[in-house]
Amino acid sequence: MIIPIEERLARVLLTCVAEPGDERLGRLVDQEGAQGAIEAVRAGGVPDCPDRVELEKRFPAWRARLSEADPERLLAACEERGGRLLCPGEAEWPSQLDDLGAGRPYALWVCGDQDLRFGCLRSVALVGARTASPYGVHMAAEMAAELADHNWTVVSGGAYGIDAAAHRGALSADGLTVAVFACGVDVPYPSAHAGLFAEIARSGLLVSELPPGTTPTRPRFLIRNRAIAALTRGTVVVEAARRSGAISTARHARDLGRAVMVVPGPVTSPTSVGCHTILRDWGEAVCVTDVADVLDRVGLIGDDMAPERRGPVLDRDHLAPAARDVLEALPARGGAGAARIAVTAGVDLDTALACLGALSAGGFVERCAKGWKLRRGPAEP
Amino acid sequence: MIIPIEERLARVLLTCVAEPGDERLGRLVDQEGAQGAIEAVRAGGVPDCPDRVELEKRFPAWRARLSEADPERLLAACEERGGRLLCPGEAEWPSQLDDLGAGRPYALWVCGDQDLRFGCLRSVALVGARTASPYGVHMAAEMAAELADHNWTVVSGGAYGIDAAAHRGALSADGLTVAVFACGVDVPYPSAHAGLFAEIARSGLLVSELPPGTTPTRPRFLIRNRAIAALTRGTVVVEAARRSGAISTARHARDLGRAVMVVPGPVTSPTSVGCHTILRDWGEAVCVTDVADVLDRVGLIGDDMAPERRGPVLDRDHLAPAARDVLEALPARGGAGAARIAVTAGVDLDTALACLGALSAGGFVERCAKGWKLRRGPAEP
Repeated sequence: MIIPIEERLARVLLTCVAEPGDERLGRLVDQEGAQGAIEAVRAGGVPDCPDRVELEKRFPAWRARLSEADPERLLAACEERGGRLLCPGEAEWPSQLDDLGAGRPYALWVCGDQDLRFGCLRSVALVGARTASPYGVHMAAEMAAELADHNWTVVSGGAYGIDAAAHRGALSADGLTVAVFACGVDVPYPSAHAGLFAEIARSGLLVSELPPGTTPTRPRFLIRNRAIAALTRGTVVVEAARRSGAISTARHARDLGRAVMVVPGPVTSPTSVGCHTILRDWGEAVCVTDVADVLDRVGLIGDDMAPERRGPVLDRDHLAPAARDVLEALPARGGAGAARIAVTAGVDLDTALACLGALSAGGFVERCAKGWKLRRGPAEP
Repeated sequence: MIIPIEERLARVLLTCVAEPGDERLGRLVDQEGAQGAIEAVRAGGVPDCPDRVELEKRFPAWRARLSEADPERLLAACEERGGRLLCPGEAEWPSQLDDLGAGRPYALWVCGDQDLRFGCLRSVALVGARTASPYGVHMAAEMAAELADHNWTVVSGGAYGIDAAAHRGALSADGLTVAVFACGVDVPYPSAHAGLFAEIARSGLLVSELPPGTTPTRPRFLIRNRAIAALTRGTVVVEAARRSGAISTARHARDLGRAVMVVPGPVTSPTSVGCHTILRDWGEAVCVTDVADVLDRVGLIGDDMAPERRGPVLDRDHLAPAARDVLEALPARGGAGAARIAVTAGVDLDTALACLGALSAGGFVERCAKGWKLRRGPAEP
C-alpha cells in the first residue's frame, strides 16, 4: 500500500504532538484518519465521539506543539541521515503491532537497512534489569547469540545491563538485532551506548515511535515496552528486580497473547526476584533455561521443529520474468531486505514481495535474519 | 485402636519378608489381614485373588525369609533400644500414609520420643541432590530453620547434601525433624551421618519401613521416597540434577495430590537442572523462593494464614475431670507428645487424644512441632 504524502506528514505530526499509545487519539485517528485528526486538533473542534470530553482536555497542549512542528523538515532530515518513516499499512509495517488496537504506534521512525517487518517475524524480546548481575549478562549474551545462530532476531530496549548484553550477543553472532527506543532514533540514550547503537544501525535496526530529537521520559520507557512485546513472538525476562521495567514488558506480552518466558536464577539474587515472582504468580509464564526451551515455545511448527526441506521444487526456467529478476537480485552469499532486493531487481516493493513469496513457496529462497536469502539446493556444497 | 500382639508380630514379619510398597501383598493383607497373609505364605497356598499368579512367584522367597525371622526377638530388641513399631490404625499411625492405598507401609519402625502422627500433620519434605552446591546447602538449611521457627516439621531422607542440610537446619532452630530411612533405623547410612542421626533420634524421629538391621538398596531408596511424599503436606525440591531421586519424591507428591514446590537456581548449575525441568514441564509445580511461599502453598487456613486466636474461650472449672488431668499433664514450657501426656495424666492414649482435641477447641492447648503445648492467654506475658 502506498501512503499519500499528506497522510505521512499527518502521521509525523501525530508522533510530534501526542505521547505514543494514546488510545483515545488512536480511536480518533481510526474514525477520522490521521489528516482528519490533525485537522481537528488544529481547528480546536473535537468531532462527536465517545472520548470527546477527555480529548478536549488534551487539545490545547497538542495545538501548542502543532504550531511548532515542521513535519516536512523532520522527514527530510531523517531521510538525509538514512532513516525512514513507516506508516501502518505499508509493506514494511510490522502488522503484529496492530494487535495493540487503538494503542498501536501512529508511525515508526526507523534507522537501518534491514526490513523491520520480516526481521520481526521470527523475533524474541530479551529484556531485563539495568543493574544486571554477571550471571544475567552472561545468560542474555549467550541466548542472544544462539537465537541469532538459529536466524531469530533479538529485540530489546538498548538500556544498560541485560538489554545491551542481548544486543551485543546477537551482533557477535552476526545476527539481526532491533533496539526499540523511548527517544528519537538519533538520540543515544544512554550516551555510553552511542557506539553500540551505531553498530546496530549498521547491521540491524533502531526503531522509535518518537520523532528524531525527542528525549526519553519515564512514561515513554513504559509505553515503549508494549511495542517491544507486540513486535515479538515472545518476551524472555532474563533478570529482573522486584520492580523492574522488564516486568511491564512481560505483562504486555501476556496481555497480547505472546509467550512469556523467564530465566530463573539464584533466589538469593535480588536481580532474579522479579523473574521468580512472575514464575510463581503468573500461570502463563514458563521457565526457560536455554534457547531450545525458547524455540519450543515460540518456534514456528514446520520451520524450527521439522527437518529442513531442501532444494527447489520448480525449475528456474518456469519462473515468471519478474520473479526471475527478483531471484537474480538476491546476493550470492548472506541475505538482503526486500526493499534492497526490489531496487536491485528494478521492480517496486509490492512486486518484489509477491515474487519473494512465490519464490519461497517454490523453494528458491528462504527468510533469514536479514530478510531473504537463497536456499541452497542439495547439489550445492 | 489397640492392635493385638499376634497382628503386630504378623506385621513385623511382613516388614521382614517383603520389600516395602508391594501392592499385591498389600491387597492380600487388605483381604486376609496381616496374620492371614503370613499364614498363606507359611502354608504356601495363595488364596483366591486377582494377584494369585504374581503372588505365587514371590511366595517361595518370602517363605525362605519367614523361616529365618524371629519377630518377638526383633520387637523386643527394638523396644530395648527405645524404638517402637507402629501399625496402621494405631493412635500414632500417620493416617495420611493411607493415601498410598495398597502400597502403604505394612508397619513403621520408629525411633525417638516425638509423636509421628502429630509431628507430620504440619510437615514439609525438603529433598534434593546428594552432590549439592553451596547454594543448595544454604537454601535447604535456611528454609528448614525458618520452617522450624513456624512450628513446621522438616522431613527428609538423611542423605548427603540437601537432606542433611535440611535436618541440620531444623535442629539448629530446635525444630522437629524426621528422617525416613531406606534401611533399619539402627543402621547409620551414610555412616558419616551417625552423629546427625543420633541427634535426630534425641529430639526428632527416625522412621523406616524396614526392620532393624536391614541394609539399604537402590530400589529401597526409591520406594522410600513415596513415604516421604505421603507423610508430608508438600515436597520442596531444593536442588536436583537431571536424574535425581528427589524428582521421584516430587513425582510421588504430585501423584498423591500433595504440593510440589521447587527452589530455582542458576540455569548454569547442573544441580538445578532437575528443578527447572519440573518447573518447565509440570503444570502442578510452583516456584518457591522462601518459607512464606511454601506456607502459602501448604499452610492450614486459619492457622498460618489468619492472625492467632488468643486465650481460652471456656473456663477451666467447666472442664471434665479427665480433660483437667490432661491439661495439668502438659509441660509448663515447650510441648510434649500425646503418648507422654497420656502417661503423665494417667489416662490411656485414646482418652488423652480425645481430651486434647476438646482442649484445643476450647482454646487451652495448641499443636506444636513436639505434639501439644499450652496456649498462652492474653493476660499472660
